[in-house]
Amino acid sequence: VTHAIVLAGGRGERFWPLSRAGRAKQFLPLVGEKTLLAATVERIAPLVAPWRLAVVTGRDQADAVLASLPGLPPEHVLTEPVGRNTAPAVALGAAWARRRDPEAVLLVVPSDAWVGDDAAYRAALAVAVDAATREEALITLGVVPTRPETGYGYLEMGEAAGDGPPLHRVARFVEKPDAPKALEYLAGGRHLWNCGIFVMRARVFLAALERHLPEVFRALEEMDARGFEAPGAREAFYAAVPSVSIDYGVMEKAENVLTVRSSFPWDDLGSWPALERVLPAEEGVVARGEVLAVECPGSVIYAEEGVVAALGVKDLVIVRTRDATLVVPKERAQEVRALVQRLGGRDEWRRYL
Amino acid sequence: VTHAIVLAGGRGERFWPLSRAGRAKQFLPLVGEKTLLAATVERIAPLVAPWRLAVVTGRDQADAVLASLPGLPPEHVLTEPVGRNTAPAVALGAAWARRRDPEAVLLVVPSDAWVGDDAAYRAALAVAVDAATREEALITLGVVPTRPETGYGYLEMGEAAGDGPPLHRVARFVEKPDAPKALEYLAGGRHLWNCGIFVMRARVFLAALERHLPEVFRALEEMDARGFEAPGAREAFYAAVPSVSIDYGVMEKAENVLTVRSSFPWDDLGSWPALERVLPAEEGVVARGEVLAVECPGSVIYAEEGVVAALGVKDLVIVRTRDATLVVPKERAQEVRALVQRLGGRDEWRRYL
Repeated sequence: VTHAIVLAGGRGERFWPLSRAGRAKQFLPLVGEKTLLAATVERIAPLVAPWRLAVVTGRDQADAVLASLPGLPPEHVLTEPVGRNTAPAVALGAAWARRRDPEAVLLVVPSDAWVGDDAAYRAALAVAVDAATREEALITLGVVPTRPETGYGYLEMGEAAGDGPPLHRVARFVEKPDAPKALEYLAGGRHLWNCGIFVMRARVFLAALERHLPEVFRALEEMDARGFEAPGAREAFYAAVPSVSIDYGVMEKAENVLTVRSSFPWDDLGSWPALERVLPAEEGVVARGEVLAVECPGSVIYAEEGVVAALGVKDLVIVRTRDATLVVPKERAQEVRALVQRLGGRDEWRRYL
Repeated sequence: VTHAIVLAGGRGERFWPLSRAGRAKQFLPLVGEKTLLAATVERIAPLVAPWRLAVVTGRDQADAVLASLPGLPPEHVLTEPVGRNTAPAVALGAAWARRRDPEAVLLVVPSDAWVGDDAAYRAALAVAVDAATREEALITLGVVPTRPETGYGYLEMGEAAGDGPPLHRVARFVEKPDAPKALEYLAGGRHLWNCGIFVMRARVFLAALERHLPEVFRALEEMDARGFEAPGAREAFYAAVPSVSIDYGVMEKAENVLTVRSSFPWDDLGSWPALERVLPAEEGVVARGEVLAVECPGSVIYAEEGVVAALGVKDLVIVRTRDATLVVPKERAQEVRALVQRLGGRDEWRRYL
């Protein structure tokens, strides 16, 4: 049966000051009224029984997960003592699911992305679940690009796989491209956005893990042998594994990787300007909260608390929270992370992180 | 003896969101740790006994005056039921001083300007007090311009008056000039900034008032006849008088007007960008409060509460208070007043005014 592993370990510093220590991007209501995590779980709910869903997150973020998902049994929050990227997180989830059903099909979904069409998203997942049930394959969701995005990884499609148009072999995983490459990918029609969604039997994934990341696999088996929840077992696992992504560590090396060519609107919400792509604008301004914007074309203004009044600025990100205000041009929004690190450099400003 | 009339009736909307209803510019610690009003009173303290000082302000601002000046007897706050510009305010102060000393010399000083050299300022005032004691004249302080400012009124100097270099007749009062005129004034050496400081005997001022604003004079005498503090007397006075400035209503029309040519650093702090002229900059940024500004040349950033982090913006005003954030280019800071009016247009935003 299908089990869902929701990845909620991200930190999301690029959404400071809204994102803070203990309140990462997936715990923010960035787009709608729900947190991205809650929206993710709601989106997959028709495909997975709620008692077959686990969330992998940092130990210090467990409370935030439960606050976002009030119905989730606490033992379904699989906590990581330290972040080690996605491969160990998915391995942990796979081990959890395997204990409950040796033939479990895993739905691995990040919790901090935006999806614009839940039905189309679920339809693509259903194709993947069907394929994963029949084949010894690792299946990804690939989204048809709609712009020459340089911030995402891509999948290059190979030949069509047995089961009709949407299913393809993955010829290769491609790192974030430069701008000319991204244009080429967009025009060529053979590349899809890698949105970090994977569907596969736990058993098949663990076999790939054993082959391509044997040290992670061995550490996982040791943890499982000691007892999944045995004192110190989780710490020993995380102390033993490198920090490695599932893409780089497993998927790029495996041969039995398929993709479901999908075209639902999708965005990984990498930084503040991404809100322009997913929220409606009024007079050129994307505004949330109490915002008075006069002649501010191209700006993204978010008032979590209190009012923001802006006049005559262009292409600016302005974010106001209870105790901090950020002002940065959209084109430099990637540097917010560095700005936050500079804040952290002064003791008296740590409370703003 | 010298009496001081401190004018504290201004509203200062151009310093929103720091200035608010009941917390006008003179009640803000815009430059130092003290409010502008407290700094003004401290600056003139060596020239006037504290029991000979009154503050004219709006009725709803009396508490703010007393909060700024804890030593002031409450009966020295002369409240106006409505604002009617400076001529009625000075008339009220003159009537108050005349009751205590028919030969009182008035020191009329606005409370919301900045002075960069208190000793030089007091020296100029002392020259004016001396002249006012000897002559039946209205004496203004005129500041030698240091830039072609189009936001101030000017005094054109006439011949030197009896008493040596600093004292001149005033040939005429000049409204805010356009840029070419302002350059001419700066180069010509005959024009001074009108900084709204006046020194004269109460009696001499009231005689000029009788001549040039007879309806204000008559209403004042009626109020005084009923009893300065009699119930309804103040309201009747303010209901009877037009809104008119002392400059336009009295000074421009009077013939016995002198000026003390002065050269202390002075600024009327008309709007946020004025802080650049009176506060030190670091890496091109004038910052107060908890401010992290990276590559923000020419910006003025004021954090009353919480932190402001800005990156890569130029010539911007950013102000953060407990419940509001303002972002506006310096060159459009004059439009903050209009922005505040737009805020007031929405019921649920009135609380931010």
